Amino acid sequence: MSERRIRLPKLKHAPDLDDIERVHTFISEYIHHTPILTSNSINDKLGCEIYFKCENFQKSGSFKTRGAISAALSLTDEELKNGLITHSSGNHGQGVAIAGQLLGVPTYIVMPKGSIASKVAACEQYGAKVIFCEPNMKSRLETANKIKEKYKGSFIHPYDNYHVIAGQGTCALEFLSKQKKLHYLLAPVSGGGLLGGTAIVSKELSPDTKVIGTEPKEADDTYRSFYSKKLKTNKETKTICDGLRGNLGEKNFPIVLNHVDDIITVKEKTIIKAMQLVWERMKIIIEPSCAVPVAAIMENKKTFRKRRVGVIITGGNVDLTQLPF
Amino acid sequence: MSERRIRLPKLKHAPDLDDIERVHTFISEYIHHTPILTSNSINDKLGCEIYFKCENFQKSGSFKTRGAISAALSLTDEELKNGLITHSSGNHGQGVAIAGQLLGVPTYIVMPKGSIASKVAACEQYGAKVIFCEPNMKSRLETANKIKEKYKGSFIHPYDNYHVIAGQGTCALEFLSKQKKLHYLLAPVSGGGLLGGTAIVSKELSPDTKVIGTEPKEADDTYRSFYSKKLKTNKETKTICDGLRGNLGEKNFPIVLNHVDDIITVKEKTIIKAMQLVWERMKIIIEPSCAVPVAAIMENKKTFRKRRVGVIITGGNVDLTQLPF
Repeated sequence: MSERRIRLPKLKHAPDLDDIERVHTFISEYIHHTPILTSNSINDKLGCEIYFKCENFQKSGSFKTRGAISAALSLTDEELKNGLITHSSGNHGQGVAIAGQLLGVPTYIVMPKGSIASKVAACEQYGAKVIFCEPNMKSRLETANKIKEKYKGSFIHPYDNYHVIAGQGTCALEFLSKQKKLHYLLAPVSGGGLLGGTAIVSKELSPDTKVIGTEPKEADDTYRSFYSKKLKTNKETKTICDGLRGNLGEKNFPIVLNHVDDIITVKEKTIIKAMQLVWERMKIIIEPSCAVPVAAIMENKKTFRKRRVGVIITGGNVDLTQLPF
Repeated sequence: MSERRIRLPKLKHAPDLDDIERVHTFISEYIHHTPILTSNSINDKLGCEIYFKCENFQKSGSFKTRGAISAALSLTDEELKNGLITHSSGNHGQGVAIAGQLLGVPTYIVMPKGSIASKVAACEQYGAKVIFCEPNMKSRLETANKIKEKYKGSFIHPYDNYHVIAGQGTCALEFLSKQKKLHYLLAPVSGGGLLGGTAIVSKELSPDTKVIGTEPKEADDTYRSFYSKKLKTNKETKTICDGLRGNLGEKNFPIVLNHVDDIITVKEKTIIKAMQLVWERMKIIIEPSCAVPVAAIMENKKTFRKRRVGVIITGGNVDLTQLPF
């Protein structure tokens, strides 16, 4: 373990703006303050003014680094010394691997078989030990538990964790501090760490901005949970968005319900089109998961017409040998 | 034609730093001042400190917009009124199309059959008329001449033109104004517009920086011209770099000979590896052509070890359905 760093106070409730600002101060030196990009060509095509907060340029290639470092910094020396454990299809795993590397403790990442090769390689490059499980939640949890018993490390949940939610919220903090007066702020939603943190920050910093979660129709648990006010799960997740197959978390659900304005679901076909549009016009690499908010604009042009729309580009970790176009 | 803009004075000799600074002032409002990016992960892997000047984020997706606008702004009203003509495998064509759009005159782009579909589409999106020719220089020139006879427009050569050379030099001007004390400055070379302009600027602004042209072994006319001091041409160009198949220009050759320190040639295999490395680690889309300087570093690690190396990322216009990995 590296020399002792200052520890973040433990959160026993959903974070508020103050908590998220404190987390931002703590993690600032470890993360990139990612740029906000625009594209005249995409604006012309979609008929609105889009601001892209580019977390594909974040360390490890996604926003997940924010939450993972935030959670790791809240652990005591005792909790930290045997290392960090998580299960992840990739991006959160990379975030935890980086957090462990920064703090000088071992990391154990349980990944489903068939995970994107470049994501597995990246975890290993950050010094993590990758343990494979079957591609379902039951096997993920069982394997993670076994690893916990064996190594006695601390488990960092990908989203159902207040420190993770606060960490992901720091992205919106940077975004809304620089880009004022957005009519809409769009983020993809899977477990709800990013969307929850984003909504908390946005409702306090910019109450007139509508916060919208976007998800594939093929994994629409949040949409169904939001409108039924009961936590639902996905039975099948036949979506190209490998980062959005998880279910909304228990800690995340009430935050989404209380702070998010709407959930929009989109078709797979539009997601692929949106991904290709961003690659071709902006020359940046984005994952299918973060093409989802762009797809939401494409499928709802009237709603967003002539509005200023913020979009969180969540990550850029793609298997370049398996592109959908 | 749009309302008359101030005209650039005609250059009757190779541009010097003053000329290039004047061109930069003239074209500034029409171009993006592109960012300089770095990647710790690539630096660690290659053992040096690389600064990437990202012209893939330039308008039309490549540095060619600089030269095309520079050349168009040097034309008289009389020369401009019937529009602009060029031949191009894509990027220069897009640059000329944008220049015509800005100045409100028609543009005619002669493109070889088999040009990348997205480049053809982009020219058309900027309002150009695309005319196809056979994929060889003879057919390009003949077709361009026919179009010139028909429409009486002004021909803008892709590189053998002092205004184009000066325009391309503005990229190095921005680069070296922001990034001082580079040990090396690397650019790909095809016709020599970019390399020529870059070398003129660098030798005056930063005389200790070594300027190196990089090209595929499969299209090594500049290497052979540089070392024989006689202008050579490529018989075959079996390279993936669609932007680097042209031959060094007559106006460009003496500039390269007088101001460039060395030419490095690289293997196709390394170019593809370099392209993939930049895509995966930096999450930006670069063309094979601009992976060539990165490949040169990969093949010559000892030379660049612990040095500060500037690399001009020339463009990001790639056919996403035809990736080499």
